[in-house]
Amino acid sequence: MRLVIEMMGGDHGVKATIPAVINFHKDYPDVELFAVGKIEVLQELEGVATLIDARDEVAVDATPLEVLRARESSLLKAINVVLDEKADAIVSAGGTGPFLSAATLKLKLVEGVERAAILAPFPTKIKGKQVAILDIGASNENTAKHLYQFALMGQFYAKAALNVENPRTYLLSNGTEDSKGIPVVVEANKLIREKNVPNFLGNIEAREVMSGDADVVVADGYTGNILLKSIEGTAKTLSGGIKKAFKRNLFSKIGYIFARKGFNEMTETFDYKNTGGAILIGVNNVVVKAHGNSDPRGFYSALVVAYKMAKADIVNEVRKGMQDVEA
Amino acid sequence: MRLVIEMMGGDHGVKATIPAVINFHKDYPDVELFAVGKIEVLQELEGVATLIDARDEVAVDATPLEVLRARESSLLKAINVVLDEKADAIVSAGGTGPFLSAATLKLKLVEGVERAAILAPFPTKIKGKQVAILDIGASNENTAKHLYQFALMGQFYAKAALNVENPRTYLLSNGTEDSKGIPVVVEANKLIREKNVPNFLGNIEAREVMSGDADVVVADGYTGNILLKSIEGTAKTLSGGIKKAFKRNLFSKIGYIFARKGFNEMTETFDYKNTGGAILIGVNNVVVKAHGNSDPRGFYSALVVAYKMAKADIVNEVRKGMQDVEA
Repeated sequence: MRLVIEMMGGDHGVKATIPAVINFHKDYPDVELFAVGKIEVLQELEGVATLIDARDEVAVDATPLEVLRARESSLLKAINVVLDEKADAIVSAGGTGPFLSAATLKLKLVEGVERAAILAPFPTKIKGKQVAILDIGASNENTAKHLYQFALMGQFYAKAALNVENPRTYLLSNGTEDSKGIPVVVEANKLIREKNVPNFLGNIEAREVMSGDADVVVADGYTGNILLKSIEGTAKTLSGGIKKAFKRNLFSKIGYIFARKGFNEMTETFDYKNTGGAILIGVNNVVVKAHGNSDPRGFYSALVVAYKMAKADIVNEVRKGMQDVEA
Repeated sequence: MRLVIEMMGGDHGVKATIPAVINFHKDYPDVELFAVGKIEVLQELEGVATLIDARDEVAVDATPLEVLRARESSLLKAINVVLDEKADAIVSAGGTGPFLSAATLKLKLVEGVERAAILAPFPTKIKGKQVAILDIGASNENTAKHLYQFALMGQFYAKAALNVENPRTYLLSNGTEDSKGIPVVVEANKLIREKNVPNFLGNIEAREVMSGDADVVVADGYTGNILLKSIEGTAKTLSGGIKKAFKRNLFSKIGYIFARKGFNEMTETFDYKNTGGAILIGVNNVVVKAHGNSDPRGFYSALVVAYKMAKADIVNEVRKGMQDVEA
């Protein structure tokens, strides 16, 4: 297996990526690694990864055209390594927009797929159980057919990556009845039913997404992004409240000593750094977007996600699945 | 002041509404109350409120036409009492759809307002500070002009109800740049800037809504509803996690004894029951929708919200504000 890592992106740059790559290499010594970035700051990776020099970096808000023109950027060079070396996967913590446009334009969509989606596994109330949500922001607007294809791709993912045999699949809306939602959602509900997508259980409201009932939740990219960021924001606000509650006084601090194990376990469950990163599903490679603020542990998890996705042959699963459906 | 209460709606019906009304009457004896519902179950309110008999109830999923036809329903009778008695406010815990369509159709929109919005105050990270979010679900689709008017109405509300002199106002989107969002949001951003709405600070992402920076957040009804329910769902999931963490073992239970005061305080802050209820802003009366699952405390808070909104003369503030803007 060959894994390409864009080293420079993310809020912490090589401070996060280098230790993550070193740890990953220890745990998965058989994976061939390619590290792309300013070669002089990557010397620690000598012997761990093939180092590929790239002098530039892409701005997080670069347009697709600017991205494609930035030939000396670590991002574009990394994607070229994927193509040249027939690598299985690529990981970056750089800006979502540039990474996704470069990946879509250069690596191309799987045949039959009209639009790639960003998919992330979220924790649920049920310990150890995750729910795959897509699209959480690759698109701004989607058609009903996109949403139908997201349902299929979400299922291929849940089968391959979450080991769910017959994924319980829902469509995000503002009510559970089939008639609820903006027009594209109503139309998508109808289309997914017409196409007899197995175990499609209709609409789900945002408050039930993490209840543990759903394995796959489909949303248009705009609404999915609002959902993702509301969950993040609320979790952050509440954890802040928890910390404050513990620091209240001497007694609460003593309380913390007794209760911390349980709390840390809960915080772990809801820490997005543990889920590692979102994947861009529907393109001809495993493309993993690590959180922009990934620390070494977060970036390591993203590398593990890429490894697992490549191991599960998710791209081929999507390819075969799309062929079966179209046939 | 005259306040009309639809007594039968909500998951707990009169079990929640009667004790709430009795407590409210104790605390606000000067407010004239009208209680509408099956008269035989309202006898406890003799001497507290004027009792008005209504034999029927409206289904939570009734269509606007079904609502208008249900003349013997507690909902329609209550709205008629508002009109007949020139009451200042109405409160119900019944279904959102029927309540809003009845209120909009019978009480009518304030002159100049194109669409009413549901507004709810949310807690923020900053203790005691709330943020007004609208629309959280009156509409499924909105125009840019609707969103512009929501910004105005949100500001009238923040001034009158949250005592903020110059409310910091944002538009919900999937990015902070003016160009980010679905077309209607991009257009609304442009329109609000053109109209020089004071202290309009551009777009805000869902994860920052509760940071305490914003006083007013404007969203289309569909996205606002997704936002509301994601916040609710995440808060519920996390509180469940907190409870589980405390119940873990004897030590964590001891920890709870020491830390509970702080936690209860935090839980209070994030408990939607304390915010009482959402208001329908833009109609010619104070219309307060209590949470469907309101307990007596929740319904009591909704009555207090109605009282405060009537006291702050929010309807007149919206009316005057709209006139000033149009002039």
